[in-house]
Amino acid sequence: MSIAAPFADLTLDAIWRAAERIAPYAHRTPVLRSHSIDAQIGAQLYFKCENFQRIGAFKFRGACNAVFALSDVEAARGVATHSSGNHAAALALAARLRGIAAHVVMPHNTIRVKIDSVRRLGATLIFCEATQAARTQTLAEVIDATGAVEIHPFAHPQVIAGQGTAALELLREVGRLDALVAPISGGGLLAGTAIAARGLCADIDIVGAEPSGADDAARSFASGVLQGNTHTDTISDGLRADLGAPNFAILRAAHTRILTVTDAQTLSALRLIYERLKIVVEPSCATALAAITKHPTFFAARRVGVILSGGNVDLDSLRWPEPSSL
Amino acid sequence: MSIAAPFADLTLDAIWRAAERIAPYAHRTPVLRSHSIDAQIGAQLYFKCENFQRIGAFKFRGACNAVFALSDVEAARGVATHSSGNHAAALALAARLRGIAAHVVMPHNTIRVKIDSVRRLGATLIFCEATQAARTQTLAEVIDATGAVEIHPFAHPQVIAGQGTAALELLREVGRLDALVAPISGGGLLAGTAIAARGLCADIDIVGAEPSGADDAARSFASGVLQGNTHTDTISDGLRADLGAPNFAILRAAHTRILTVTDAQTLSALRLIYERLKIVVEPSCATALAAITKHPTFFAARRVGVILSGGNVDLDSLRWPEPSSL
Repeated sequence: MSIAAPFADLTLDAIWRAAERIAPYAHRTPVLRSHSIDAQIGAQLYFKCENFQRIGAFKFRGACNAVFALSDVEAARGVATHSSGNHAAALALAARLRGIAAHVVMPHNTIRVKIDSVRRLGATLIFCEATQAARTQTLAEVIDATGAVEIHPFAHPQVIAGQGTAALELLREVGRLDALVAPISGGGLLAGTAIAARGLCADIDIVGAEPSGADDAARSFASGVLQGNTHTDTISDGLRADLGAPNFAILRAAHTRILTVTDAQTLSALRLIYERLKIVVEPSCATALAAITKHPTFFAARRVGVILSGGNVDLDSLRWPEPSSL
Repeated sequence: MSIAAPFADLTLDAIWRAAERIAPYAHRTPVLRSHSIDAQIGAQLYFKCENFQRIGAFKFRGACNAVFALSDVEAARGVATHSSGNHAAALALAARLRGIAAHVVMPHNTIRVKIDSVRRLGATLIFCEATQAARTQTLAEVIDATGAVEIHPFAHPQVIAGQGTAALELLREVGRLDALVAPISGGGLLAGTAIAARGLCADIDIVGAEPSGADDAARSFASGVLQGNTHTDTISDGLRADLGAPNFAILRAAHTRILTVTDAQTLSALRLIYERLKIVVEPSCATALAAITKHPTFFAARRVGVILSGGNVDLDSLRWPEPSSL
């Protein structure tokens, strides 16, 4: 499997240029550490806190880079996407910052906190059925009607380059790492992470954390052929999308390792993040720490980066497991 | 009402010396801002995040200052206190850092997360009934038996000086403020805050936020005579202690204003902090933001510091109000 143009041009240099492009708009998020989590796991963990990013998730990096990479002529047509939440808010904010229109196709069952945040940011919302086919069809209609430029949530080179800026910042701040772990769904974050991290540290291990109830990436890597999910069953609502084809190609080239975690493991890791780091993150985000706690031998005594992807959680829906279940 | 020695010596200089004393051990906590909270309230809020302090609360500042201010001879006797939680953990950690014993008298109904954290820090725990009389009596017995030095949670000059270092750091970082709001219970944090803030900005308003279900400070200020609580009824488990006599004297001298808030207002503010700032704080801590949202006119268009006092929350006990209820 080869990497098709324009994704073949995605090198470390593209990440540096994305970092420069988004610098006036994006937050440089903090890196947190926890002595007690380190002691419990037996490794040195560096948490890159994208829950503090604008719109509460790393997604702003990619959307911002894609929107500001458009020519003036392209930008004037506005932008459009389908997204279950964080990419939608990210694109809405990026479009507002550039002063252009954003059209967002969203499943009608998207959680309230995410719908509200996109509305507040001034995007035009178009609701559809919660199937991939309905999203694609509705988006095609919106683009036909408006002429807007599609900014795909993950299978888009400038989105991938933008997402890679989180890993670039992390490595610039903390220095060489042995491994870097991020959640995987469509693969935008992890592909950008892989390009940035492998570009800076040739032998770093790239690890994708995936819910066992939406394990298309694990099956794709096991079989060598891109697989989809026939259905998904996970509390990690940000990780239900299928892995993108260019994302899969980039991640295979980086020898990415996929580790699956159960929802119970994710919730235990979520609790650990709330209790020890004192920060609010969404369940999807905790899969990365869950993957580490599930594979202590792999990470033992190593310097490990963890991308905490976002903090847009529906607080009412949180159900905490017992603290000792980790 | 006059301020008795040794509390009369508590000046800005004592806070500077405390800051120097605790610098090798305490975290310099971040200051967070939220454009959306500012827009909603119509003021500029600067949140000093003591939930990221060691042991998860500002209490480490005072305990650390008190423990390291002891002479070697005093320190060798060990330290003792009674506390429902954060001061206990703070004293345990400070004693461990100085290499001395800590004895902690604690009501048997203290929440689990707080008991566990004190145990992990190596203190000797002595449980008692959940009354002020039982705490005092049990502590006297412990001191008789061990010879330890009592470090009171709030009516102690070096504890007050240590707590004032949070306000000192905040003002050094963000510059002049019009008002500074912190929760009030025993009054250690607010008295230290008042000394630091009034010392730096003569005309700053000092505001104490108090649960209406434990409103002894509000009644004390209204009557001019120190009042106690015959019983307390609030979710703010860190704010059930009665205001201390020296603390009351210091706060009256600083023309402190006490604003009471209901538990419903506190929970709405708590939700706002979780959803917008993306940080984990305990309910007691949210009283400060609740006091601001309840009195928008007083704070309108002003630069307001908010001391977010701690993050040691029992996640299982959290019940979220509707998001629109603020």
